[in-house]
Amino acid sequence: MSIPSATQDSYPYQDEPTWSRLEKAVARTAFDAALKRELHEVMQEAKRMANQINEPADLWDLEHFLNQRRKEIDRKYDYRYSRLTQVLGRLLYEGRVSEEELSGLREDKLKLIRSFAEFLAKDAA
Amino acid sequence: MSIPSATQDSYPYQDEPTWSRLEKAVARTAFDAALKRELHEVMQEAKRMANQINEPADLWDLEHFLNQRRKEIDRKYDYRYSRLTQVLGRLLYEGRVSEEELSGLREDKLKLIRSFAEFLAKDAA
Repeated sequence: MSIPSATQDSYPYQDEPTWSRLEKAVARTAFDAALKRELHEVMQEAKRMANQINEPADLWDLEHFLNQRRKEIDRKYDYRYSRLTQVLGRLLYEGRVSEEELSGLREDKLKLIRSFAEFLAKDAA
Repeated sequence: MSIPSATQDSYPYQDEPTWSRLEKAVARTAFDAALKRELHEVMQEAKRMANQINEPADLWDLEHFLNQRRKEIDRKYDYRYSRLTQVLGRLLYEGRVSEEELSGLREDKLKLIRSFAEFLAKDAA
Protein backbone atom coordinates (compact mmCIF):
# COMPACT_ATOMS: atom_id res chain seq x y z
CA MET A 1 0.00 0.00 0.00
CA SER A 2 1.56 3.30 -1.06
CA ILE A 3 0.61 6.62 0.39
CA PRO A 4 1.11 9.50 -2.06
CA SER A 5 3.36 12.15 -0.64
CA ALA A 6 2.13 15.71 -0.49
CA THR A 7 3.65 17.77 -3.26
CA GLN A 8 3.65 21.43 -4.28
CA ASP A 9 4.55 20.58 -7.88
CA SER A 10 0.98 19.94 -8.92
CA TYR A 11 -0.41 23.28 -7.75
CA PRO A 12 -2.89 23.76 -10.56
CA TYR A 13 -2.69 27.52 -11.04
CA GLN A 14 1.05 27.88 -11.43
CA ASP A 15 0.83 28.69 -15.15
CA GLU A 16 -1.94 31.23 -14.78
CA PRO A 17 -1.04 34.73 -15.87
CA THR A 18 -1.09 37.40 -13.19
CA TRP A 19 -3.08 40.56 -13.82
CA SER A 20 -1.63 43.99 -13.09
CA ARG A 21 -3.78 46.73 -11.66
CA LEU A 22 -4.04 48.40 -15.09
CA GLU A 23 -4.94 45.10 -16.75
CA LYS A 24 -7.63 44.47 -14.18
CA ALA A 25 -9.13 47.86 -14.92
CA VAL A 26 -9.06 47.26 -18.69
CA ALA A 27 -10.58 43.79 -18.32
CA ARG A 28 -13.29 45.00 -15.95
CA THR A 29 -14.30 47.86 -18.25
CA ALA A 30 -14.48 45.60 -21.31
CA PHE A 31 -16.35 42.91 -19.37
CA ASP A 32 -18.90 45.33 -17.91
CA ALA A 33 -19.50 47.02 -21.26
CA ALA A 34 -20.12 43.67 -22.99
CA LEU A 35 -22.49 42.55 -20.23
CA LYS A 36 -24.39 45.84 -20.41
CA ARG A 37 -24.77 45.54 -24.20
CA GLU A 38 -25.89 41.91 -24.00
CA LEU A 39 -28.48 42.69 -21.30
CA HIS A 40 -29.72 45.58 -23.43
CA GLU A 41 -30.22 43.15 -26.33
CA VAL A 42 -32.22 40.80 -24.09
CA MET A 43 -34.37 43.72 -22.90
CA GLN A 44 -35.12 44.75 -26.49
CA GLU A 45 -35.91 41.18 -27.53
CA ALA A 46 -38.17 40.62 -24.50
CA LYS A 47 -40.13 43.77 -25.31
CA ARG A 48 -40.45 42.70 -28.95
CA MET A 49 -41.64 39.20 -27.98
CA ALA A 50 -44.09 40.58 -25.41
CA ASN A 51 -45.60 42.95 -27.95
CA GLN A 52 -46.28 40.02 -30.25
CA ILE A 53 -47.99 37.83 -27.66
CA ASN A 54 -51.28 36.64 -29.13
CA GLU A 55 -51.88 33.33 -27.42
CA PRO A 56 -50.86 31.54 -24.21
CA ALA A 57 -48.05 29.56 -25.91
CA ASP A 58 -46.35 32.89 -26.68
CA LEU A 59 -46.25 33.62 -22.94
CA TRP A 60 -44.42 30.42 -22.14
CA ASP A 61 -42.06 30.97 -25.08
CA LEU A 62 -41.15 34.31 -23.51
CA GLU A 63 -40.67 32.66 -20.12
CA HIS A 64 -38.42 30.01 -21.69
CA PHE A 65 -36.42 32.65 -23.59
CA LEU A 66 -35.81 34.68 -20.41
CA ASN A 67 -34.90 31.58 -18.41
CA GLN A 68 -32.39 30.40 -21.01
CA ARG A 69 -30.82 33.82 -21.53
CA ARG A 70 -30.44 34.37 -17.77
CA LYS A 71 -28.67 31.03 -17.32
CA GLU A 72 -26.47 31.59 -20.35
CA ILE A 73 -25.45 35.07 -19.20
CA ASP A 74 -24.78 33.82 -15.66
CA ARG A 75 -22.49 31.12 -17.05
CA LYS A 76 -20.74 33.35 -19.58
CA TYR A 77 -19.93 36.39 -17.44
CA ASP A 78 -17.69 34.69 -14.88
CA TYR A 79 -15.27 37.34 -13.58
CA ARG A 80 -12.63 35.17 -11.97
CA TYR A 81 -9.03 35.87 -12.99
CA SER A 82 -8.55 32.12 -13.45
CA ARG A 83 -11.28 32.19 -16.13
CA LEU A 84 -10.84 35.65 -17.58
CA THR A 85 -8.79 34.88 -20.70
CA GLN A 86 -11.43 32.36 -21.78
CA VAL A 87 -14.28 34.71 -20.90
CA LEU A 88 -12.75 37.58 -22.85
CA GLY A 89 -11.83 35.17 -25.67
CA ARG A 90 -15.47 34.16 -25.98
CA LEU A 91 -16.64 37.77 -25.93
CA LEU A 92 -14.08 38.62 -28.63
CA TYR A 93 -15.25 35.66 -30.73
CA GLU A 94 -18.88 36.76 -30.33
CA GLY A 95 -18.01 40.32 -31.30
CA ARG A 96 -19.08 41.55 -27.86
CA VAL A 97 -15.70 43.09 -27.07
CA SER A 98 -13.34 44.65 -29.60
CA GLU A 99 -9.56 44.43 -29.79
CA GLU A 100 -9.54 48.14 -28.98
CA GLU A 101 -11.33 47.56 -25.71
CA LEU A 102 -8.61 45.06 -24.76
CA SER A 103 -5.70 47.40 -25.45
CA GLY A 104 -3.74 47.81 -22.27
CA LEU A 105 -3.55 44.07 -21.64
CA ARG A 106 -0.09 42.54 -21.92
CA GLU A 107 0.76 40.43 -24.95
CA ASP A 108 0.65 37.15 -22.94
CA LYS A 109 -3.03 37.78 -22.16
CA LEU A 110 -3.90 38.98 -25.66
CA LYS A 111 -2.35 35.86 -27.18
CA LEU A 112 -4.42 33.61 -24.91
CA ILE A 113 -7.58 35.61 -25.55
CA ARG A 114 -7.14 35.58 -29.35
CA SER A 115 -6.17 31.95 -29.28
CA PHE A 116 -9.40 30.99 -27.45
CA ALA A 117 -11.46 33.15 -29.82
CA GLU A 118 -9.85 31.36 -32.78
CA PHE A 119 -10.51 28.00 -31.18
CA LEU A 120 -14.21 28.84 -30.81
CA ALA A 121 -14.37 30.03 -34.41
CA LYS A 122 -12.86 26.76 -35.65
CA ASP A 123 -15.05 24.74 -33.29
CA ALA A 124 -18.17 26.39 -34.69
CA ALA A 125 -17.12 25.95 -38.33
CA MET B 1 -48.83 -10.50 14.13
CA SER B 2 -52.11 -9.41 12.51
CA ILE B 3 -52.69 -9.16 8.78
CA PRO B 4 -55.37 -6.58 7.86
CA SER B 5 -58.12 -8.13 5.78
CA ALA B 6 -58.94 -6.64 2.40
CA THR B 7 -62.07 -4.53 2.54
CA GLN B 8 -64.25 -2.69 0.04
CA ASP B 9 -65.54 -0.36 2.74
CA SER B 10 -62.70 2.09 2.51
CA TYR B 11 -62.97 2.65 -1.25
CA PRO B 12 -62.15 6.35 -1.23
CA TYR B 13 -64.36 7.60 -4.05
CA GLN B 14 -67.66 6.14 -2.94
CA ASP B 15 -69.07 9.55 -1.94
CA GLU B 16 -68.00 11.35 -5.07
CA PRO B 17 -70.83 12.82 -7.11
CA THR B 18 -71.31 11.50 -10.61
CA TRP B 19 -71.54 13.96 -13.48
CA SER B 20 -74.25 13.67 -16.14
CA ARG B 21 -73.46 14.46 -19.75
CA LEU B 22 -75.18 17.86 -19.45
CA GLU B 23 -73.29 18.66 -16.25
CA LYS B 24 -70.00 17.77 -17.88
CA ALA B 25 -70.77 20.15 -20.72
CA VAL B 26 -71.70 22.96 -18.31
CA ALA B 27 -68.58 22.38 -16.19
CA ARG B 28 -66.30 22.20 -19.21
CA THR B 29 -67.66 25.44 -20.66
CA ALA B 30 -67.33 27.32 -17.36
CA PHE B 31 -63.86 25.89 -16.76
CA ASP B 32 -62.59 26.74 -20.25
CA ALA B 33 -64.03 30.27 -20.12
CA ALA B 34 -62.35 30.96 -16.76
CA LEU B 35 -59.02 29.60 -17.99
CA LYS B 36 -59.23 31.70 -21.14
CA ARG B 37 -59.96 34.86 -19.12
CA GLU B 38 -57.16 34.16 -16.66
CA LEU B 39 -54.64 33.55 -19.46
CA HIS B 40 -55.79 36.77 -21.10
CA GLU B 41 -55.06 38.63 -17.84
CA VAL B 42 -51.56 37.14 -17.72
CA MET B 43 -50.95 38.17 -21.34
CA GLN B 44 -52.01 41.74 -20.60
CA GLU B 45 -49.88 41.90 -17.46
CA ALA B 46 -46.83 40.45 -19.24
CA LYS B 47 -47.14 43.07 -22.00
CA ARG B 48 -47.48 45.82 -19.41
CA MET B 49 -44.43 44.58 -17.45
CA ALA B 50 -42.36 44.19 -20.64
CA ASN B 51 -43.16 47.72 -21.74
CA GLN B 52 -41.85 49.04 -18.43
CA ILE B 53 -38.55 47.14 -18.52
CA ASN B 54 -35.77 49.65 -17.85
CA GLU B 55 -33.07 47.57 -16.25
CA PRO B 56 -31.96 43.93 -16.09
CA ALA B 57 -33.74 43.27 -12.78
CA ASP B 58 -37.04 44.04 -14.52
CA LEU B 59 -36.31 41.20 -16.97
CA TRP B 60 -35.87 38.65 -14.22
CA ASP B 61 -38.97 39.97 -12.44
CA LEU B 62 -40.92 39.26 -15.62
CA GLU B 63 -39.39 35.78 -15.86
CA HIS B 64 -40.33 35.09 -12.24
CA PHE B 65 -43.87 36.40 -12.76
CA LEU B 66 -44.40 34.15 -15.81
CA ASN B 67 -42.91 31.14 -14.04
CA GLN B 68 -45.13 31.58 -10.98
CA ARG B 69 -48.29 32.23 -12.97
CA ARG B 70 -47.70 29.18 -15.20
CA LYS B 71 -47.26 26.90 -12.17
CA GLU B 72 -50.26 28.39 -10.39
CA ILE B 73 -52.50 28.00 -13.44
CA ASP B 74 -51.29 24.43 -14.01
CA ARG B 75 -52.17 23.55 -10.43
CA LYS B 76 -55.50 25.37 -10.38
CA TYR B 77 -57.05 24.17 -13.65
CA ASP B 78 -57.18 20.46 -12.86
CA TYR B 79 -60.06 18.98 -14.86
CA ARG B 80 -60.56 15.66 -13.09
CA TYR B 81 -64.11 14.88 -12.00
CA SER B 82 -62.72 13.86 -8.61
CA ARG B 83 -61.40 17.43 -8.20
CA LEU B 84 -63.98 19.43 -10.09
CA THR B 85 -66.21 20.66 -7.27
CA GLN B 86 -63.15 22.11 -5.52
CA VAL B 87 -61.77 23.57 -8.75
CA LEU B 88 -65.08 25.25 -9.59
CA GLY B 89 -65.48 26.32 -5.94
CA ARG B 90 -62.14 28.09 -6.11
CA LEU B 91 -63.03 29.75 -9.42
CA LEU B 92 -66.35 30.88 -7.92
CA TYR B 93 -64.55 32.27 -4.85
CA GLU B 94 -62.07 34.13 -7.07
CA GLY B 95 -64.90 35.56 -9.18
CA ARG B 96 -63.61 33.71 -12.24
CA VAL B 97 -66.84 31.81 -12.80
CA SER B 98 -70.32 33.12 -12.03
CA GLU B 99 -73.30 31.29 -10.56
CA GLU B 100 -74.96 31.76 -13.95
CA GLU B 101 -72.22 29.86 -15.70
CA LEU B 102 -72.82 26.97 -13.32
CA SER B 103 -76.55 26.76 -13.93
CA GLY B 104 -77.38 23.31 -15.25
CA LEU B 105 -75.41 21.57 -12.50
CA ARG B 106 -77.48 19.59 -10.03
CA GLU B 107 -78.02 20.93 -6.55
CA ASP B 108 -75.64 18.37 -4.96
CA LYS B 109 -72.76 19.81 -7.02
CA LEU B 110 -73.77 23.43 -6.49
CA LYS B 111 -73.88 22.90 -2.74
CA LEU B 112 -70.38 21.44 -2.72
CA ILE B 113 -69.06 24.18 -5.01
CA ARG B 114 -70.60 27.00 -2.95
CA SER B 115 -69.49 25.34 0.27
CA PHE B 116 -65.86 25.20 -0.91
CA ALA B 117 -66.03 28.83 -2.08
CA GLU B 118 -67.33 29.85 1.35
CA PHE B 119 -64.61 27.84 3.06
CA LEU B 120 -61.94 29.69 1.02
CA ALA B 121 -63.51 33.04 1.84
CA LYS B 122 -63.45 32.24 5.56
CA ASP B 123 -59.94 30.83 5.30
CA ALA B 124 -58.69 34.05 3.70
CA ALA B 125 -60.44 36.33 6.21
